[in-house]
Amino acid sequence: MSVLIVGSVALDTIEANDKKIKDSLGGSAMYASMAASYFTKPSVVAVVGNDFPGKYIHLLNKHNIDTSAIAISSGKTFRWHGKYSCDLNQAKTLDTKLNVFADFNPILSVEQRKIKYLFLANVDPNIQKTILNIMINPKFVALDTMNFWINTKIKELKEILKKVDLLLINEDEAVQLSKQNNIIKAAKVIQKLGPKYIVIKRGKSGATLFYKNSIFSTISFPLENVVDTTGAGDTFAGGFIGYLAGINKTDFNSLKKAVIYGTIMSSFNVESFSLKRLSSLKKKDINKRLKEFKQVIKF
Amino acid sequence: MSVLIVGSVALDTIEANDKKIKDSLGGSAMYASMAASYFTKPSVVAVVGNDFPGKYIHLLNKHNIDTSAIAISSGKTFRWHGKYSCDLNQAKTLDTKLNVFADFNPILSVEQRKIKYLFLANVDPNIQKTILNIMINPKFVALDTMNFWINTKIKELKEILKKVDLLLINEDEAVQLSKQNNIIKAAKVIQKLGPKYIVIKRGKSGATLFYKNSIFSTISFPLENVVDTTGAGDTFAGGFIGYLAGINKTDFNSLKKAVIYGTIMSSFNVESFSLKRLSSLKKKDINKRLKEFKQVIKF
Repeated sequence: MSVLIVGSVALDTIEANDKKIKDSLGGSAMYASMAASYFTKPSVVAVVGNDFPGKYIHLLNKHNIDTSAIAISSGKTFRWHGKYSCDLNQAKTLDTKLNVFADFNPILSVEQRKIKYLFLANVDPNIQKTILNIMINPKFVALDTMNFWINTKIKELKEILKKVDLLLINEDEAVQLSKQNNIIKAAKVIQKLGPKYIVIKRGKSGATLFYKNSIFSTISFPLENVVDTTGAGDTFAGGFIGYLAGINKTDFNSLKKAVIYGTIMSSFNVESFSLKRLSSLKKKDINKRLKEFKQVIKF
Repeated sequence: MSVLIVGSVALDTIEANDKKIKDSLGGSAMYASMAASYFTKPSVVAVVGNDFPGKYIHLLNKHNIDTSAIAISSGKTFRWHGKYSCDLNQAKTLDTKLNVFADFNPILSVEQRKIKYLFLANVDPNIQKTILNIMINPKFVALDTMNFWINTKIKELKEILKKVDLLLINEDEAVQLSKQNNIIKAAKVIQKLGPKYIVIKRGKSGATLFYKNSIFSTISFPLENVVDTTGAGDTFAGGFIGYLAGINKTDFNSLKKAVIYGTIMSSFNVESFSLKRLSSLKKKDINKRLKEFKQVIKF
């Protein structure tokens, strides 16, 4: 099964580890679709400006990613400029320019609207809602969001939460959304808002999946050299939903394995700036790291 | 095999979760020996004042803990007063009164000096050194320390690190000691200081064991209700060393299991103030939680 991924495409300027890169490929849809491409065929719904380098479209197509729903608007591509402190835990946003992203009107083919697995990556809940409404009988809908939308569009966010199967959310944002300081309590509150499944992403501490009264929790892959954590959550989500779409299963046990694949994919992503490492993987790299991961947690 | 545990005995005043307890049993030797008592027979080396309630000695003895090396000095027992913010991650020390702890001169019997497993809990490196010097051919020596000693007695600490098999240390203290921001890099630096094994305690994120180039890492047990995290690290250490002494094995695989038992024991400890929960366990509670833990991480 293929997966439809709705999200942002950005040209990022990032400062981390005393290095700086400028206008490099980023955005939630890019990280997520690249990670998903190792498991299934992703279709990306997004918008770019007419300054968006063709080489990036070529890179996506090389990974068998359908880019036909990436609209090209007249204007500039969305830009983000972030800077990390030395622990690489969270970036400080120095500048955001929405540019063409401000008037994003997605257009999908009927074939794309029939895709069974949908990932609504971190964008305006109104865009997420628009896409969800035009989909034709999706089987599994996952949604990501962030503090900005919790602060500014909580009503719209809560409306769409009623209609999704799974919410992926950072620990501090889960706390913010639920007004609970403990992630188990937070998940219980969020379950009542709609999603049957919740994945709380805990950065370098790992990830935890909630389903009814069951919990599955894992560490992140231990890494000695972390270069840039931008897109780690989006990559996790892409690996997660891509794996599920690839095996076409949505039971709890499959979701546990999806958490592990999300963990593995995001571990590659943080080893370089932009999508450099993530886009250069072979299937055997993923299998090797999975084996190493199992070795690290085995007792 | 039994284990000798050297550390502090304190009467703690703790504020957490809008509750406050006063002069309740605490100190690294108490948490560690109570946790170890479920796996082996601990002997405690410590000092208390003549105000130390007899009921606490009774509690230790009920758990088959040898208290004959707990000296009773004229004066008051060591006091600590701490307050936690709502995330319970780290206490702010409001007051410390060393009292009799300032002149701690441990006296051990020959039998105690022959004990094969030694845990030098978090006390002045000079006390740790004194004990280590009088031990008769110990098989396995584990040491804990904290930021205070790294700041004030780094020379003494480095001297004793050369002579121990394992260092247990919090993540931020590992960073401080090694001057490395990454725990794998930190462990490599610390390994060069002496210890063959290093356990980095990462609070609610779990714990990671380092041995040569191998890493074993685990989550903490997910808990919905955390009451007070005081002594969690000492309890972890007590469960860890107690398990090893109980099975009398010190290979890497046994140490991995010891990390899990440390994790399980500390999960009980944070469910109450002081040693209330930790001292009321049955072996079947530990086995049940271990089973639940395995379920949570299984995929």
